[in-house]
Amino acid sequence: MDDARDKGLTLNPKYDRDGLITAVVTDVENGDVLMVAHMNEQALQLTIQTGFAHFWSRSRQSLWKKGETSGHMLQVRDIRIDCDQDALWVKAVPAGPTCHTGARSCFFRRVGPEGLTAVDAAE
Amino acid sequence: MDDARDKGLTLNPKYDRDGLITAVVTDVENGDVLMVAHMNEQALQLTIQTGFAHFWSRSRQSLWKKGETSGHMLQVRDIRIDCDQDALWVKAVPAGPTCHTGARSCFFRRVGPEGLTAVDAAE
Repeated sequence: MDDARDKGLTLNPKYDRDGLITAVVTDVENGDVLMVAHMNEQALQLTIQTGFAHFWSRSRQSLWKKGETSGHMLQVRDIRIDCDQDALWVKAVPAGPTCHTGARSCFFRRVGPEGLTAVDAAE
Repeated sequence: MDDARDKGLTLNPKYDRDGLITAVVTDVENGDVLMVAHMNEQALQLTIQTGFAHFWSRSRQSLWKKGETSGHMLQVRDIRIDCDQDALWVKAVPAGPTCHTGARSCFFRRVGPEGLTAVDAAE
C-alpha cells in the first residue's frame, strides 16, 4: 500500500505495463454501467480538458474520442479515481447508444448458472 | 469483432494474458461504483455459485473472498457481462464499507483540472 497514493489529493494514476488505466462509464441519470474501457495519460488529460470521454483503443492501438464517428459521445459530468489510482469512474450523459451493437449499455446480458440471458432494456 | 462472443448467449469470457477479467461492483441501491477488481475463472464461478463476490488479488496472487477477514462481504444481486466479454458488472449489497480505507466506495476522490478533491460521502 502507498499511503500518499491511497489517501492523498495528488493525481498519480497507477498505469499498468501498457500505460493504461481502467475507466468505468456510468449513466449519470440512473447509475447504469454503460461501458468499461481504458485510458492512457493523454486520453485522461483530454477527457478532463474537453469534458468528453476519450479512450485508448487496445485493438486499434490509437487514441479514440468516443462517438467521434457515431456521434454517440459521452459528455462527462464527474470523474472519480479509486484508492490505488488504477481505475476511474466517469459519470456521463450519453448522446445515444453506448455499445457498438446498438445497445444502450454494453452490459446487455446477464450471467447466471445456466449461461447468459438477454436483459430487457426496460430493466 | 467476434459476433458469437459479442451477441450470443454463451458465456465465453475473454481473459487477459494473466487469466483475468475486470469486475466493476456497484451498489444495487444507488448505482454508485464501489470498487473495481479482477476475477479469474475460479473467482467468477465461485461468485456465481455462492452469491458472494470473489476476486483474484493481483498483489497477493491469490483467490480472495471479499470481506473474508473484514466481514464486509458483497452479496451479489445481478451479474452482467459486456459485449466483448472482457468486463463484468456486479450489482451487490455491501455489508459495510467496501474500501480498505474505510470509505463506503473506493472512489472517494474527484479528478479535476487542479488535481483531486475529497468527495462528501453524502453526495
